[in-house]
Amino acid sequence: MASLTALKSRLADLNALDSALSILDWDQQVLMPPKAVEARAAHSSALGRMRHELLTSDETLRLIESSKSEVDTASVDGALLRVVSRMADLATKIPAALVAEKYKLASEGHEAWVEARKANDFPKFAPILERMFEIAREEANYLGYKEHIYDALLDQFEEGATKADCDRMFGEVRQPLVDLVREIKEAGHDFDDHFLNGDWDEAKQRSFTERLVAAIGFDMARGRQDTAPHPFCTNFSISDVRLTTRFKSYLPSAIFGSLHEAGHGMYEQGSPMEWDRTYLAGGVSLGLHESQSRLWENIVGRSFAFWRYFLHELQAIFPPIAAFGAEQFYRMINRVEPSLIRVEADEVTYNLHILIRFEIECAILTGELAVKDLPEAWNAKYQSYLGILPPTDSDGCLQDVHWSMGAIGYFPTYSMGNLLSYQIWSALKKDIPNPDDLMARGEFGPIHEWLRTKIYAQGKRFPPKDLVLSVTGKPMGGVDYIEGIGAKYRSLYGI
Amino acid sequence: MASLTALKSRLADLNALDSALSILDWDQQVLMPPKAVEARAAHSSALGRMRHELLTSDETLRLIESSKSEVDTASVDGALLRVVSRMADLATKIPAALVAEKYKLASEGHEAWVEARKANDFPKFAPILERMFEIAREEANYLGYKEHIYDALLDQFEEGATKADCDRMFGEVRQPLVDLVREIKEAGHDFDDHFLNGDWDEAKQRSFTERLVAAIGFDMARGRQDTAPHPFCTNFSISDVRLTTRFKSYLPSAIFGSLHEAGHGMYEQGSPMEWDRTYLAGGVSLGLHESQSRLWENIVGRSFAFWRYFLHELQAIFPPIAAFGAEQFYRMINRVEPSLIRVEADEVTYNLHILIRFEIECAILTGELAVKDLPEAWNAKYQSYLGILPPTDSDGCLQDVHWSMGAIGYFPTYSMGNLLSYQIWSALKKDIPNPDDLMARGEFGPIHEWLRTKIYAQGKRFPPKDLVLSVTGKPMGGVDYIEGIGAKYRSLYGI
Repeated sequence: MASLTALKSRLADLNALDSALSILDWDQQVLMPPKAVEARAAHSSALGRMRHELLTSDETLRLIESSKSEVDTASVDGALLRVVSRMADLATKIPAALVAEKYKLASEGHEAWVEARKANDFPKFAPILERMFEIAREEANYLGYKEHIYDALLDQFEEGATKADCDRMFGEVRQPLVDLVREIKEAGHDFDDHFLNGDWDEAKQRSFTERLVAAIGFDMARGRQDTAPHPFCTNFSISDVRLTTRFKSYLPSAIFGSLHEAGHGMYEQGSPMEWDRTYLAGGVSLGLHESQSRLWENIVGRSFAFWRYFLHELQAIFPPIAAFGAEQFYRMINRVEPSLIRVEADEVTYNLHILIRFEIECAILTGELAVKDLPEAWNAKYQSYLGILPPTDSDGCLQDVHWSMGAIGYFPTYSMGNLLSYQIWSALKKDIPNPDDLMARGEFGPIHEWLRTKIYAQGKRFPPKDLVLSVTGKPMGGVDYIEGIGAKYRSLYGI
Repeated sequence: MASLTALKSRLADLNALDSALSILDWDQQVLMPPKAVEARAAHSSALGRMRHELLTSDETLRLIESSKSEVDTASVDGALLRVVSRMADLATKIPAALVAEKYKLASEGHEAWVEARKANDFPKFAPILERMFEIAREEANYLGYKEHIYDALLDQFEEGATKADCDRMFGEVRQPLVDLVREIKEAGHDFDDHFLNGDWDEAKQRSFTERLVAAIGFDMARGRQDTAPHPFCTNFSISDVRLTTRFKSYLPSAIFGSLHEAGHGMYEQGSPMEWDRTYLAGGVSLGLHESQSRLWENIVGRSFAFWRYFLHELQAIFPPIAAFGAEQFYRMINRVEPSLIRVEADEVTYNLHILIRFEIECAILTGELAVKDLPEAWNAKYQSYLGILPPTDSDGCLQDVHWSMGAIGYFPTYSMGNLLSYQIWSALKKDIPNPDDLMARGEFGPIHEWLRTKIYAQGKRFPPKDLVLSVTGKPMGGVDYIEGIGAKYRSLYGI
C-alpha cells in the first residue's frame, strides 16, 4: 500500500489548502473589512494555484494510478480513489489557458452583469454572455460526453447526471406543475402574509433560529451560525460547519433560510469522523445536498406539525405573532403565487423557474437559440409556464448571477434537490410512518438519525445515482414530488 | 533582476500561506466551535510545514543569494533581501529534529503548566521547564552569538538586541522604579477604583471602544474589532487588521485593551500600500510594536487630556460614571499598587515584573540558578523589588504561559516597548510641543500622522536599532521613561 499511503499524505495537504481557501471565502462573505478585497483575492488566487499544482502534479497523478492496483474498487479506499481520480480528471482535462480566460471573463462578466441589470440593458451584457457560452462549449468538448453537450457540463456539478435525466425529470413534473399552479390561482384564496413583515429584533431572530437548527439536530459544538448578505453554508472540517443566515423585516426569511442552511450543514456534520480531512467526507453532489436543505426547510420546516410545536415559542418571543393560530400561520408560510424572481419563489412554482433556465441553456448550447434572442425566449416561457410576463429584463433574464460567472449546467441541481427531497421523504416514511406525530412533539431525532445513517454517513462513498437508488429504491424522478406537493397544496387551497 | 523577480514571486506565495495561517489562528481564538480543535491543528500544521518547506527550499535560498548581486543594499529591495535572509537564516539554522521536539514539548508543556498552576505544584512542572531551558540553550548554540547566550534568544524577537542592551536599559530604570513605587506607597493615597466595576452593557462597551479606536486613527474600513478571551491583534494584509478585546465587569479593561490593540493595529495599517504582501510591511520588532500599543494605551489613553475630551461621552453612555469628574476618573485609571500578577500590573510597577523574569532567565541559562530553585529566587525578587511576597507559586513563578511554550528571551521586549513609548513621545514633542492641547480637543490626527510618517510607514525597512536612532536621535534607554512616569505619578500622588 506504499502508493496509497503516499497519496493520502498528499491529499491531507490538499485538504489543508482547501480548508484555508474555504475559510478565506467564508470570512470574505461574513466579516472581512471592505478595503481588504484586493489582498484577499491575491491570497486566494495564490493558494488556489498551489492547490491546482498539487492536485495535478505528475507525482499525484502517478500515485493515483499506482494506487489502483493496491486496492479493491468496492472498498472504502477504492471509493476514495474513484473520487480523487475524478477530481484530478476534471482539473486536468481543461487547458490552463481556457481556465484562465474563464476566470477573467467571470470577473469582468460579474461586473458587466451587475451594471446591465441595474441599467436594464441586456444588449450590453450579451457579448460577454455569448463568449461565456462559447467557453462552456469548449469546456464540454475537452471534458467529453456521450450523448449531449449538456451532459459534460452538468456532470461537473452532479456526477453522472445527463440531459436525458433532466428531460425525464422535468417531463414528469412540467405539466402537473403548470396545472397545479393554475388550479391554485383559480381557487381564489390569497393567504395574506404581509403581517409577517415587521421590525423584528435581530438578536431575538438570531436566538430563535439557533434554537430551531439545534432542535432539528445541527450540532452547535461543531459549527456556528453567522450572518451574510447572501446566506450559504460552508465547512472547514466535519467538526467545523458554518451556517449563515440574514435577518430581514420579513420574519420567515431568516427562519426558513436558517433551516435550509442547517440541512446542508447536518449533511456535512454527518460524515464518519474517520473520513475527516479526506475526500470521502461531505455531500456527494449538489442535487443530494440541495435535497437535504429543501427537506428540512420545506417538508419539515413548512409543515403544520412543525408549527404546532414551535409556534408558541415564536409567539412568546414576538407577541404580534400571537394574533395567528397554527393553521393560519401554516397557510401564510405556504402562500403560492407565480412571481418573476426565482429566489423569491414558493415551493410550487420554483421548479418552473429552473425548467425555463434549463431549456434556455440547452437551446443556446446547441445553437437553436442565439444569445441576442434570449430575452424574448425567456419572456415567452414565463408567460407559458407561469402566466406572467417580466416587465423588464432586469426582472427577467438578467436576474441570476450564475451565467455571468460561467456556471452553465448548474441550475437543474436545484430541481433535483426539490424532487429528491420528496422522494427521500417517501422512503423515510416506510421506516418512520408517522413523522408528523414526531414533529408535532418536537422530536426530530428519529428523522435526523434515519437521514444520517442512510445519506450523511455515506459521504461521497457511492456515486449520487447509486446512493439515490439504494436509499429510495428507484432512480431520481418526479412522482413523489408531484404527489407530495399536490396533496399538501390541494388541501391548503381547498382544491 | 531575474533572480529578484523570481524570489518575489515565491515570497508572494509564502505570504499567502502566512496569511492563511494567521486567519486560521484568528478564527480559532475568536470564533471557532469547540470541537473543531483537532482538525484545525492538523490544517495549521500542514500549512506551516508547506510554509517552512517553501522558505527553506534550495531554490529559495539560491534566489536569495543570487539576488544579492542584483540590488543595492541601501535600496528598498536591499532591505527586503536583508529581512528575507534573516527569516531564512532563523528557519534553517535550527535542526528540524530540535524544532519538532520543541513543538511537542511546548504542547505537553502547556498542558502540564495549566495543571501545575491549578494544583500549585511547581515540582510537577519543573522537569518540563528544565528541558525547555535546555532546548533554549541548544537553540542559542545553533543560532550563534558573540557575547552572551541570551543574545541569540532575544535576537529572534528583537533583531540585534543583546543582554548588554537589557542590562543598560534595566540599569537605568531599576532603582528609580523601586524608589518611585516606595514613594507612592508612602504617599498614602488610595485611588479607589472599585466603582468602575459594574454590569456594563456589552454592546455599549463595544460601540464606545470602536468609537475610541476610530477617533485615534484606526481605519475601520481596513480592519475590525471582535472579542477574544485573550485579546490580541493580527493582520492578514495591510488593509485587513483584526483587533480583539474583551468586555468585563471592570470597565477600563475593554477601554484600555482596545486602545492597546489599536496601537498595534495602526502600526500594521500604516505600512506603504506598495509593500502589501511583501516582507517589508508590518512592525519591525516586538519592542517597537509594543511601544505603539503602550503609547496609545498609556501615554494617550491614560492622560488627563484624553478624558477631558471623552469622559462626557462615556458618562452619556453609562450614567453612573457621571458621579466622577475628569480629575477623579483620571486618578482611578492610574491607580498604582504593587501586585503579584504581571498582566494586571499598572504602568509603574509593570517593568519590575519583567526585570524579575529577565534576571531569572539569564540565571537559569547560565547555570547560576537551578530550575528547582526557581520559586525561591522568584519570591525573593518580588519581595526585594515590589515589597510583596507571592503566597503560592500559582501567583508566583507559575503565572505566565511563555516559558511553557518555549518563549525564552521574549519578556524584555515588553519593557522595551514601555521605555520606547516614552522615548518616542519625547521625540514627538519636539515637533508637536502641545500634544495635550490637541488630545483635549479630540484631535489625534497630528499625533497619528507623526507616528505614521516616522515609524509605521518605515515598515521593516530599517533594523529596529537604526529606526530608534533615526526617530529619537539616540539608542533605546530608560531616561525619558523615568522622567515621564516620574512626573506623571509624582503629580498624581502629590509627591
